Amino acid sequence: MNKGRLEAFSDAVIAILMTIMVLELKVPHGADWAALRPMLPVFLAYLLSFAFLAIYWNNHHHMLHAAERINGKVLWANQHLLFWLSLVPFGTAWVGENHNASLPTAAYGVVLLLAGVGYTMLQGTIIEAAGEQSKLALAVRKDLKGKLSLLLYAVAIPVAFARPWVSDALYV
Amino acid sequence: MNKGRLEAFSDAVIAILMTIMVLELKVPHGADWAALRPMLPVFLAYLLSFAFLAIYWNNHHHMLHAAERINGKVLWANQHLLFWLSLVPFGTAWVGENHNASLPTAAYGVVLLLAGVGYTMLQGTIIEAAGEQSKLALAVRKDLKGKLSLLLYAVAIPVAFARPWVSDALYV
Amino acid sequence: MNKGRLEAFSDAVIAILMTIMVLELKVPHGADWAALRPMLPVFLAYLLSFAFLAIYWNNHHHMLHAAERINGKVLWANQHLLFWLSLVPFGTAWVGENHNASLPTAAYGVVLLLAGVGYTMLQGTIIEAAGEQSKLALAVRKDLKGKLSLLLYAVAIPVAFARPWVSDALYV
Amino acid sequence: MNKGRLEAFSDAVIAILMTIMVLELKVPHGADWAALRPMLPVFLAYLLSFAFLAIYWNNHHHMLHAAERINGKVLWANQHLLFWLSLVPFGTAWVGENHNASLPTAAYGVVLLLAGVGYTMLQGTIIEAAGEQSKLALAVRKDLKGKLSLLLYAVAIPVAFARPWVSDALYV
Repeated sequence: MNKGRLEAFSDAVIAILMTIMVLELKVPHGADWAALRPMLPVFLAYLLSFAFLAIYWNNHHHMLHAAERINGKVLWANQHLLFWLSLVPFGTAWVGENHNASLPTAAYGVVLLLAGVGYTMLQGTIIEAAGEQSKLALAVRKDLKGKLSLLLYAVAIPVAFARPWVSDALYV
Repeated sequence: MNKGRLEAFSDAVIAILMTIMVLELKVPHGADWAALRPMLPVFLAYLLSFAFLAIYWNNHHHMLHAAERINGKVLWANQHLLFWLSLVPFGTAWVGENHNASLPTAAYGVVLLLAGVGYTMLQGTIIEAAGEQSKLALAVRKDLKGKLSLLLYAVAIPVAFARPWVSDALYV
Repeated sequence: MNKGRLEAFSDAVIAILMTIMVLELKVPHGADWAALRPMLPVFLAYLLSFAFLAIYWNNHHHMLHAAERINGKVLWANQHLLFWLSLVPFGTAWVGENHNASLPTAAYGVVLLLAGVGYTMLQGTIIEAAGEQSKLALAVRKDLKGKLSLLLYAVAIPVAFARPWVSDALYV
Repeated sequence: MNKGRLEAFSDAVIAILMTIMVLELKVPHGADWAALRPMLPVFLAYLLSFAFLAIYWNNHHHMLHAAERINGKVLWANQHLLFWLSLVPFGTAWVGENHNASLPTAAYGVVLLLAGVGYTMLQGTIIEAAGEQSKLALAVRKDLKGKLSLLLYAVAIPVAFARPWVSDALYV
């Protein structure tokens, strides 16, 4: 199978997601500082999501660089990851418009959590396709950091219903 | 001719289609569960179309991987397939806003059907370009599954006028 | 210089242009045939522009496949062509909303004409970069068809002010 | 590390940015010259931003072509540059709607300035990764032109508060 084409397709999807979020940055109606102030939470949500997707792209880059074999399961695990990443702009827009609200903050956390789960599953299929080898050890070491962030997201979701700003801090 | 560039172009088009659908997921006006409920059919339509395009990408990946020669007819058959796929986001948005309505459900089916026809035609041009070879046998075996889904779509379109939810089940 | 990257960049731009036009296909408010009827001119404009961009991509594919050397002038001529192509979705949307109106039809023709001029200029820089060779003969033969369509566009623009539908036919 | 994938990802992001700006070119409501006149500043802002991104793409193309080694720092410097470039469409839309207003003009300048800073930082990481070599001399020569434009942007931002049209001229 063709690793290059899987990379190119994932690149295109992540690049589009990173850039279409900018379409949510609606042009303010005035031209003074007052018009710019309500944009601050929207802008911060954009910055956080841009960084989030950039981290995923970098990790995806490294992981596929290390991958030796690609099979049908890897293709589908990759599509599953991209599905959850594709919901990031929607979550970003909702949080940006309703900061300090519980449900949007929790929903954003669910998307981040499931993207993390999707990434871990993709890792699993790549390791399985490559067999039990030295790359596995490296992957497991990374996994520790991955599992920690999954745990953080899982904690942040219920917290969002009590104290949205605590969840915001945890996502960062 | 250059197979890589045909793949890259198709990747870009399908990646964009999969991600611009997320722009149709309008941010709800409130921040509670009541605001989220009307989004359910829109979200399900998004999920179905994402899966549909992902299946097409995977099949397209395998078919072009097997293709040996690309000629002008293959280029045009590919553009024809991409045209019908490009109407998927429009169909998705219309169905998402009017679930259980006959005409949008039927229109969505027409788009899926013609995408299937376009795929079968692309397959034909690739087989023709490669000549009558062993790949053909493999293609014909796949064709059985392809023809079955074409038949299902064709059945679902008239059914949509009587029972929209039956058509929805057939598309899945 | 790197021909592959120029191709990839042009592919991405043309793929995006072909697909963002679908965002102009606004979802009709009703779910019956009456709601679909006003969409017909919009849909036809979409079909025409999709075909127009598909033709440009195919020609671009063949021309760059034949190109032997890429220099700075080719890069800029390519950006110039992409600029005019990037105005196709705007022209499409305007014509789609105001069919049979003179100015939008003429504006659409201006965009098509300048895209054609941009393509001819790109061809010129590629031939210049390659030197006077056998590829040139091939290019000049193609040029005849290219110059004919430039002439047609140039004729259609003033005609648009008198009889918009005649211009529409000429564009096709 | 994989230079090709970094290039492909950057291509996709810049291509999307250049083309989504066209979505800001709202279709005029009428079909006569009067309807087209208010679009002039929007169109000029589009033209300027398209040229700006095209220049960045060309420079990025040349710089990465010369780059010999890519490391983690280069990946992140590239993401940082893309972040500022991703704000160009937003700045363009704001300036296009409020030409001759101080704050949007200054904000646009801030985005251009920080994109320039991001580019200089990316250059630094690539030189660092490659070691002190002959490419460095070439890069430093380019740097002079780069530093000059950084200075121009830095001058234009405060000027925007006094005379917006002077800043517009400086950006060009």
